[in-house]
Amino acid sequence: MTADALVFYSPVDDAVAWREALTAELPGIDFRVDPDVGNPDEIGYALAWMPPKGFFSRFPNLKLVTNLGAGVDALVRRDDLVPVKFSRLSDPGMVAMMTSYVVFAVTRYARDMHIFERATRRGEWEYVHPRPLSDIHVAVLGLGELGGPAARTLASMGFSVTGWSRSVKNIEGVTSVTGEDGLERVLADNEIIVSLLPLTVQSRGLLGAREFGLMPRGVKFINASRGAIVDEAAMIEALRSGHIGEATLDAFEIEPLPPDHALWSFENVLITPHMASITVPKLAARDVAESIRRVRQGLPPLHEVDPAHGY
Amino acid sequence: MTADALVFYSPVDDAVAWREALTAELPGIDFRVDPDVGNPDEIGYALAWMPPKGFFSRFPNLKLVTNLGAGVDALVRRDDLVPVKFSRLSDPGMVAMMTSYVVFAVTRYARDMHIFERATRRGEWEYVHPRPLSDIHVAVLGLGELGGPAARTLASMGFSVTGWSRSVKNIEGVTSVTGEDGLERVLADNEIIVSLLPLTVQSRGLLGAREFGLMPRGVKFINASRGAIVDEAAMIEALRSGHIGEATLDAFEIEPLPPDHALWSFENVLITPHMASITVPKLAARDVAESIRRVRQGLPPLHEVDPAHGY
Repeated sequence: MTADALVFYSPVDDAVAWREALTAELPGIDFRVDPDVGNPDEIGYALAWMPPKGFFSRFPNLKLVTNLGAGVDALVRRDDLVPVKFSRLSDPGMVAMMTSYVVFAVTRYARDMHIFERATRRGEWEYVHPRPLSDIHVAVLGLGELGGPAARTLASMGFSVTGWSRSVKNIEGVTSVTGEDGLERVLADNEIIVSLLPLTVQSRGLLGAREFGLMPRGVKFINASRGAIVDEAAMIEALRSGHIGEATLDAFEIEPLPPDHALWSFENVLITPHMASITVPKLAARDVAESIRRVRQGLPPLHEVDPAHGY
Repeated sequence: MTADALVFYSPVDDAVAWREALTAELPGIDFRVDPDVGNPDEIGYALAWMPPKGFFSRFPNLKLVTNLGAGVDALVRRDDLVPVKFSRLSDPGMVAMMTSYVVFAVTRYARDMHIFERATRRGEWEYVHPRPLSDIHVAVLGLGELGGPAARTLASMGFSVTGWSRSVKNIEGVTSVTGEDGLERVLADNEIIVSLLPLTVQSRGLLGAREFGLMPRGVKFINASRGAIVDEAAMIEALRSGHIGEATLDAFEIEPLPPDHALWSFENVLITPHMASITVPKLAARDVAESIRRVRQGLPPLHEVDPAHGY
């Protein structure tokens, strides 16, 4: 018997849109939505976001698990994984969305738009002389599938961009820096700092009181990655003291951010409801289909993930 | 006698920065700041922004007038021009600045940031599901030196971009439309409309009640060109009726916008103090120097302007 059916599980994604998108790429795919999985022996592929504990071991002939998202932190920290291939989504629509979020947030500060928004509300014509974009130093922490394109686009727009990542990256116009001492320099030398770090054991809580203290006073901080990258209490303290001058935040320890949370109280914090980047099934389905074709042929999937490494 | 000195005139630009930047490119240039012009017969070149009436005819040996800005509307409508060569600034820093302004304003609407700004002020987590950038149709009116790069960058980010201009333009990823009927279609078919039109006899008051009426209800309108492109009373009426849903405005009939002006009263209008794009001497000086060298050799200047055509 060939285990060639796919099981879909997600508490947030749209199963109907995914069935349609994947069927367009892989006509005849046997697309089953949990809990209507039929004979579990027939399941060869899983397309899943945060399935319940023990989910994967229900399918003895499973060959490939594709994570329904680019961030695999919730997947790789599980203790119930089975020895199959793992891959993650790579969605050009998701990359474009994240880049647009970062470009918006950086440009808003670079062009003093946060000042003009407040002046408009006061009914005041407050002129601030613009600075050349090349005089504005922006750091992007994390140069992966989302951080890399965002950094490249910022550089192509004319900003002076430094990227920090685990390994050296060759991205046009972007200065690549690595290591712990590299991080200290990057934090100290940039007036706008963007986190696009993947959430791993190493990056959890990476930005705390010490790291905010290394940033220049008045720094503009943008978190479009995960809430747990940041020590939220330390960030709030740095906002209270004025060390962080402005922040744009898309991810938090608790989401939705509770109504009585301290972060709502700052006029200089823009809060967005974790929408920087989402998966668009019709754009992401092509690579999912190609990974299934490759695994059928005994090849590794696209965008393979090694749970032992955490990415 | 060789008339090889330059006269500088501007009520807003920094003469010291210009002297320094131009001297770096043209060592020994005899840079004179009005009114300290010395012998007017020695003046061969003028670098000027809105000089007083009769300014040019004071210099009998003038060969070249370079407009201290990309927009030449204030220059070409003068009735005191002399028969010399005219050129305008082309400043890569200015182009990058304008692109950043347009990208900011378009992305703010495309990513629902205006909604999140207001929700943050209310202390509310208001989720809006993101749309793929390719589903968002943006029109750029005017595909000249500023509009062309802005349109190209928006297209490269993933937006669906249509440009309207006098002549057909070949810009990667941008649908080029021309003509009066073309304008009607462009206004009707795009949810975000950006004006980067040069101010000419033809474009003055181009966007009035009829044109706003052609736009879809709730349209996001961005004016980063000149106030006089727009019939301001008609725009305010379209804002009052809700036909214009959001606006970002950098240019106005009267600047600074008076404190009691109706435009201050709209929560859905972002007003910026005519800062979308400014000249950066150290970036713009190279082409000014090259134009002077070319005119010395009997060649036409770079970025030549024909006052009869208005651009």
